Amino acid sequence: MDGKAAPDAVAAVDQARQWGRLMEMAEFGAIPGEGVNRACLTALDRASRRLLLAWGAEIGLAPSIDALGNLFLRQEGTDPTLPPVLTGSHMDSQPNGGRFDGIWGVIAGLEAIQALREAGLATKRPIELVAWTNEEGGRFAPGCMGSMAYAGYRPAHAWDEVTDAEGMSFGAELEKHLALEAHIPRRPLGVVEGVAPFAYVECHIEQGPLLEAEDLDIGVVEGIQGSRWFSVEIIGRSDHAGTAPVSLRRDAVQDMVRAITALNALMYDPADVLRFTVGRVEVSPNSSNSVAARARFSIDCRHPDAAVLRARGDAVPGVVQSAMRGCSASVAERFNALPTAFSPMICQVVEDAARAQGMGVRRMQSGAFHDAQFMVPLCPSGMIFVPCRGGVSHHPSEYSTPSQLAAGARALTAVLAELANR
Amino acid sequence: MDGKAAPDAVAAVDQARQWGRLMEMAEFGAIPGEGVNRACLTALDRASRRLLLAWGAEIGLAPSIDALGNLFLRQEGTDPTLPPVLTGSHMDSQPNGGRFDGIWGVIAGLEAIQALREAGLATKRPIELVAWTNEEGGRFAPGCMGSMAYAGYRPAHAWDEVTDAEGMSFGAELEKHLALEAHIPRRPLGVVEGVAPFAYVECHIEQGPLLEAEDLDIGVVEGIQGSRWFSVEIIGRSDHAGTAPVSLRRDAVQDMVRAITALNALMYDPADVLRFTVGRVEVSPNSSNSVAARARFSIDCRHPDAAVLRARGDAVPGVVQSAMRGCSASVAERFNALPTAFSPMICQVVEDAARAQGMGVRRMQSGAFHDAQFMVPLCPSGMIFVPCRGGVSHHPSEYSTPSQLAAGARALTAVLAELANR
Repeated sequence: MDGKAAPDAVAAVDQARQWGRLMEMAEFGAIPGEGVNRACLTALDRASRRLLLAWGAEIGLAPSIDALGNLFLRQEGTDPTLPPVLTGSHMDSQPNGGRFDGIWGVIAGLEAIQALREAGLATKRPIELVAWTNEEGGRFAPGCMGSMAYAGYRPAHAWDEVTDAEGMSFGAELEKHLALEAHIPRRPLGVVEGVAPFAYVECHIEQGPLLEAEDLDIGVVEGIQGSRWFSVEIIGRSDHAGTAPVSLRRDAVQDMVRAITALNALMYDPADVLRFTVGRVEVSPNSSNSVAARARFSIDCRHPDAAVLRARGDAVPGVVQSAMRGCSASVAERFNALPTAFSPMICQVVEDAARAQGMGVRRMQSGAFHDAQFMVPLCPSGMIFVPCRGGVSHHPSEYSTPSQLAAGARALTAVLAELANR
Repeated sequence: MDGKAAPDAVAAVDQARQWGRLMEMAEFGAIPGEGVNRACLTALDRASRRLLLAWGAEIGLAPSIDALGNLFLRQEGTDPTLPPVLTGSHMDSQPNGGRFDGIWGVIAGLEAIQALREAGLATKRPIELVAWTNEEGGRFAPGCMGSMAYAGYRPAHAWDEVTDAEGMSFGAELEKHLALEAHIPRRPLGVVEGVAPFAYVECHIEQGPLLEAEDLDIGVVEGIQGSRWFSVEIIGRSDHAGTAPVSLRRDAVQDMVRAITALNALMYDPADVLRFTVGRVEVSPNSSNSVAARARFSIDCRHPDAAVLRARGDAVPGVVQSAMRGCSASVAERFNALPTAFSPMICQVVEDAARAQGMGVRRMQSGAFHDAQFMVPLCPSGMIFVPCRGGVSHHPSEYSTPSQLAAGARALTAVLAELANR
């Protein structure tokens, strides 16, 4: 690697171009308050991917798509036979999400590749930019389907029967998407059918308050806390709200309230490290003068310690069952990701690249899960965080400044230049 | 009144015809499990009303419709200047409702009028059959809009801005309905613009277990417990489920759970007379990995004692506010109906008519509210209950036998003959 070329590439990162692209992407699914609602495999998701393809085509990147709809843009290496360095993130958003979560990791990857090209820096290894399918899991649970299938963590058709709130299945929507994108060359599905990357680096906003509070530029992510997701269904009996004696009811709302209260006790953590969330609730028939016959709710439980996560998560079904008074309950685990440790080598490359540019850096854990965690068994993997205002994410007010995001892209550029020449 | 004509009319009640009509009506909005989902002011509601109009036309009943869409079919009296006897109920159903709640009261009224005609029994007073608009309140809350406006309890346009789950407003849907039914002669709105009836009698299934348990035919309804409905909105803040510390959250689901738990304590009644129901819950953004920014729920509270209902209901806003930890809450009262006492005269007429036909009779209270309660200030009013299986209502399995329903129609026939000749 040319000792001078990497700094040239870093200098070629264009803050205004990257910001402009993010704002263009934010128009797909724009919602009030500068937010974005871009659910995976929708027309909006497709429109944002097609814009990415167009930008990639302008600089000669070769597109391909796999069986999960994961989208790749390849910058060839001087030795095309070598496993590529992979970078990217996802383009879907939360239903009431912001303009940076996920999409910035994709746009930053594009910016870094474009900067390398504009600096005339050819790398030995190919560099591939990836947009993973359905990271958020807001429309089809769980999230990270694209990266999980790529990594062989779950089979490609594991989620075909998962339905969204309108009853559309993931399998049918994916099939439709692939048919609409049939002009994109098909590639084998990740390490299941293909070959492992040489390394994986993902840029993302922090989604927490630390970098901003400490006025730092770059977070070197050493690991991700583990996550377990459950869905609970409580079956009661509908009754007339005016006639059925309360003592004789099998009221699904009331047993749901009892279950959540019991789960709060199970999940109580005086250290406030454990994250326990009931974010989704659905009641049927959902009529104010009918006793609820059914209630469903989600459980999202996270902790950096695998033993804690195992113990609390394993107790969920029993605690829910014990809380039932008149109803029956079933608990299904939808997602179980152990705490992840990223590659010390990648962490060091990221830290060195950022410090060489005079940036303020800290090592940290990620509270959110990311596609990157599924790359860990495949290849040396890591993440680059930048600050976000107030630590707010999954909300329209999510915000990072153009210069914070440009700093992240500059760090990534140097990291890709380093890794792709190893 | 001819002492013999009334028995002839009672004998003319046709069990098979009444049952056949109920089964025909149940096809409008049929759902699995023999249920019905026929929301008010929908095309299904209109279709059922048009079928009623057709049946009325076959026997020469004169239709009219008022500003709330309440539909009337008039059998003329020998003295058309006298205030009519009014009977009927509603044709809309719960979203997951049964085949008898409401609709039977309308079909029974038609059967009774037809039986009187077939027996050649002309009455002095006109008899009017009414189908009230939106009794259930399942699509547009509260229920009983048609009868409340007819009675002058609330102004005709009180609910114009009320929206359904799809954001359609009651006012716009009513306007559309009236435009589609413009061929029906328009009549003044009840006592607001018109004249009070001489009496009102409504047939309904019991929606409770007493008549079946005691093997009786007819319930003489002496009163209806009071109802208060509230809607509660809790505003929190959305956060990332993996990053936001639990202690710093403003989680709308958690504060909703705390509010419902506190309300359970407020509404606890060791005598199990008070009916407290949270039947409707809506959470936003309703994503499993986002802390809820908003939660809404309904409160339905009923008791036969006005003082109890006043005290418990008035305490609702304070109890909800006290339960908030990180969120803010607003409580709106949607409906407030005091306990109702029906006319002793009507109760006696119903009881005498049923006993004269050898039926088993008891006096009772109604747990559910009904359009009849809004008629009480206007004219002597009452209700006739028949048994329903297991006391189940507001559910597809709601059921009364053809012979139980025929007994109710026979009682009504004799009651109408008696009242319309007074």
